[in-house]
Amino acid sequence: MQNTTQLKDQLVTANRVLANEGIIEGFGHVSVRHPDGDKLLISRSLSPKLVTRDDIMTMTYDGTIVENKDKQPYLETVIHRAIYRNRDDVDAVVHHHAPDMMPFVATDTEIKPVFHLAALFHEGVPSFSDYDTEMGPLIVTEAEGDRMAAALGDKRAQLLENHGANVVGESLKEAVLGTVYLVMNARYQIQAEQLGTPSYFDGPQDTLEATVDDVILADISIDRMWSYLCDRLPNDPSM
Amino acid sequence: MQNTTQLKDQLVTANRVLANEGIIEGFGHVSVRHPDGDKLLISRSLSPKLVTRDDIMTMTYDGTIVENKDKQPYLETVIHRAIYRNRDDVDAVVHHHAPDMMPFVATDTEIKPVFHLAALFHEGVPSFSDYDTEMGPLIVTEAEGDRMAAALGDKRAQLLENHGANVVGESLKEAVLGTVYLVMNARYQIQAEQLGTPSYFDGPQDTLEATVDDVILADISIDRMWSYLCDRLPNDPSM
Amino acid sequence: MQNTTQLKDQLVTANRVLANEGIIEGFGHVSVRHPDGDKLLISRSLSPKLVTRDDIMTMTYDGTIVENKDKQPYLETVIHRAIYRNRDDVDAVVHHHAPDMMPFVATDTEIKPVFHLAALFHEGVPSFSDYDTEMGPLIVTEAEGDRMAAALGDKRAQLLENHGANVVGESLKEAVLGTVYLVMNARYQIQAEQLGTPSYFDGPQDTLEATVDDVILADISIDRMWSYLCDRLPNDPSM
Amino acid sequence: MQNTTQLKDQLVTANRVLANEGIIEGFGHVSVRHPDGDKLLISRSLSPKLVTRDDIMTMTYDGTIVENKDKQPYLETVIHRAIYRNRDDVDAVVHHHAPDMMPFVATDTEIKPVFHLAALFHEGVPSFSDYDTEMGPLIVTEAEGDRMAAALGDKRAQLLENHGANVVGESLKEAVLGTVYLVMNARYQIQAEQLGTPSYFDGPQDTLEATVDDVILADISIDRMWSYLCDRLPNDPSM
Repeated sequence: MQNTTQLKDQLVTANRVLANEGIIEGFGHVSVRHPDGDKLLISRSLSPKLVTRDDIMTMTYDGTIVENKDKQPYLETVIHRAIYRNRDDVDAVVHHHAPDMMPFVATDTEIKPVFHLAALFHEGVPSFSDYDTEMGPLIVTEAEGDRMAAALGDKRAQLLENHGANVVGESLKEAVLGTVYLVMNARYQIQAEQLGTPSYFDGPQDTLEATVDDVILADISIDRMWSYLCDRLPNDPSM
Repeated sequence: MQNTTQLKDQLVTANRVLANEGIIEGFGHVSVRHPDGDKLLISRSLSPKLVTRDDIMTMTYDGTIVENKDKQPYLETVIHRAIYRNRDDVDAVVHHHAPDMMPFVATDTEIKPVFHLAALFHEGVPSFSDYDTEMGPLIVTEAEGDRMAAALGDKRAQLLENHGANVVGESLKEAVLGTVYLVMNARYQIQAEQLGTPSYFDGPQDTLEATVDDVILADISIDRMWSYLCDRLPNDPSM
Repeated sequence: MQNTTQLKDQLVTANRVLANEGIIEGFGHVSVRHPDGDKLLISRSLSPKLVTRDDIMTMTYDGTIVENKDKQPYLETVIHRAIYRNRDDVDAVVHHHAPDMMPFVATDTEIKPVFHLAALFHEGVPSFSDYDTEMGPLIVTEAEGDRMAAALGDKRAQLLENHGANVVGESLKEAVLGTVYLVMNARYQIQAEQLGTPSYFDGPQDTLEATVDDVILADISIDRMWSYLCDRLPNDPSM
Repeated sequence: MQNTTQLKDQLVTANRVLANEGIIEGFGHVSVRHPDGDKLLISRSLSPKLVTRDDIMTMTYDGTIVENKDKQPYLETVIHRAIYRNRDDVDAVVHHHAPDMMPFVATDTEIKPVFHLAALFHEGVPSFSDYDTEMGPLIVTEAEGDRMAAALGDKRAQLLENHGANVVGESLKEAVLGTVYLVMNARYQIQAEQLGTPSYFDGPQDTLEATVDDVILADISIDRMWSYLCDRLPNDPSM
């Protein structure tokens, strides 16, 4: 098990990887559950590309900041907090507005796996639109966060209508790679829908689960894709 | 309030940001109202990526150059001048031909918000095509500029048919970020229109206005996106 | 008027600009008429990004190499030679397979101006497909070249079905910028055709010609776009 | 004929070229038949951008590792092994999931040549979907590999439904360039199908074969495109 410092460093890497892949740009954020299990680690409000270990805040699930109290948090930390308090099996959350996801966020077209790595989402990606009326499609109140987490249910990802998407995982790497695979699927599916009759990857449940457990989430796969993404990070100190 | 030198430096940054994001390429320009209120600051005719403080001209609303008189101005400064003389609430103007905008500029499809940040344009983006017949869809005469400004009305952006778009703001940052969000919306909307039935973000007026005032134009949002765009600028001296 | 060395240097820049913009990749080539008027300058068979002054061959219109005789020419120099011998008003030719052009090269959809800079092509972009049967859609024989030049007629550009496109100009800068504007139009038109009902820029003949002569081909416009494209070239010696 | 060390170095270059062009990203792999004819060379499981000579494994067609025995092979080496044992005329194999291929991999739309360089695939690109049921659309068992190779037949490429594609060649350069041309065709065809009525390059058999033999696979063409792709490789030591 990682100690808190190691986890903060991995969270910094996760921020930089997601920024470098164009998934979280000016906005968007990623968090990880604290090893103690009762709070979470997330950057202060900052462009993800610039996050360093010192920018990581520790925050309880009700939003109380317990480390870096003088720093400004993101506006929508309730997205993360509501998921952690409702999903014991989740230890990492990515909230993002990746460009390739946005056409799905702005239509009623369902996102479905068109290639093997997206089998991760074979149980479906529900769409949430039951927003509070005050602030449009942002998630800012505790009640709104809880409704959003209820709509996520036990799934691995959800869309937020006219806003973005959340992807969860049992670990930071799983949430980051899941986000990458969901965004790839979105890109391929948009083009497939225009090109012809899509053949979704929706084999028997056993096959889908084996693909997830024995291939996509196998250590060898996670390590190879993670190292690929880290290799793509620029070396210059500003990144 | 910023002094003129600070404003010129911010205008240089705005030029570089818009160039770096691929929004103003060889052509396209950005201006800001002079602190005195009776004239404007705009670069001489130059590729925006290369603009420095010494390239900034000061010009009255009738086109008289009062600083850098020996320099060649852009062909279409009347776009900026006509807007400033017709819109007291506007202090910055971006005129551009961003690739993702061009399909809307070349069709009768209306641009409508498909994600939260584009709520800025919920009052509509009118299209102007009442050009003088001499020079095609360029805006070069004072009368043409005034007709264009009248068509803009009190909106935040307008399309110029077969040519490009204008985005205005109460400040340089607001005009630049508004441009970025409009271009993002264009990209997402093009794909959404092809993928399925778009769900535009067109909630109740109160919600839309609150999203604009309390989220999109809140200092925390403007600062984060602006710092993100500035962080993306290359460090090398040629940029 | 430029001397031959200056023209060779400008041809090197044209090669690098077209490579840097992704217009001529591994294949594709650009030539300029020699100041003597009876021959042309073109690189030896080489990836355009790598061309230097020493790689420029001088070649007569029948294909006799008079400078750099020991070098391997491109397979399709007849494209250039046939145009020069049939078009006295043309002093530069770009032959390319730019990705955004290829959908037009592979369909019967006509390319038409959707934005002002493409007014350059308001007289139409004819498509050639009367190939010799031996080598598919490549232009390799003198007779094939002459048929191709006849199909071009007095136009500024032509498509070669299932192959690529040619753009001509009265100068190297005009041919390079024309290529850039044609490729931009292709990109915008593809998306406009999908988004809605395109409004082509097809005003009265006078307006179109004034747009071409007084705006697009005005020195100020050519200089600004050319300097923009040159500014984008990487500084490193390999480029 | 190349010795084994030269071949390994060329395989390293092939890995880097395919990574640099975005064709094999985190996953995907390329192999070459060993000069002895009874085994193959392929990298250990590694992000292709990072492959060095020391990472190359030697493996027999039944999967026995004879060099670099302590290293972890890719999960799907049977793709390569099954092709080599079924196709004496093939000396190199690229297995990939290039983004532009994926819409074809996820629909029933046939990939057909829309430009001259794709004439290489004029005999068709069959699609394989007769997977074992255990692991979804991955190729992991010997029997599955043999069925896949049988479906490839004597063709130059095949699609693997909901997964990716294989491209083969008589040499490493041929397999790599064939992959590049197939991916380019995919991109152009997707857009052509949306833009209008595609005109496929499907001339008489003689013309197609001459285009392949005398143009596409001519030494001058292979050398120019290969040098172009190598020139594009970053110089920095990490690549």
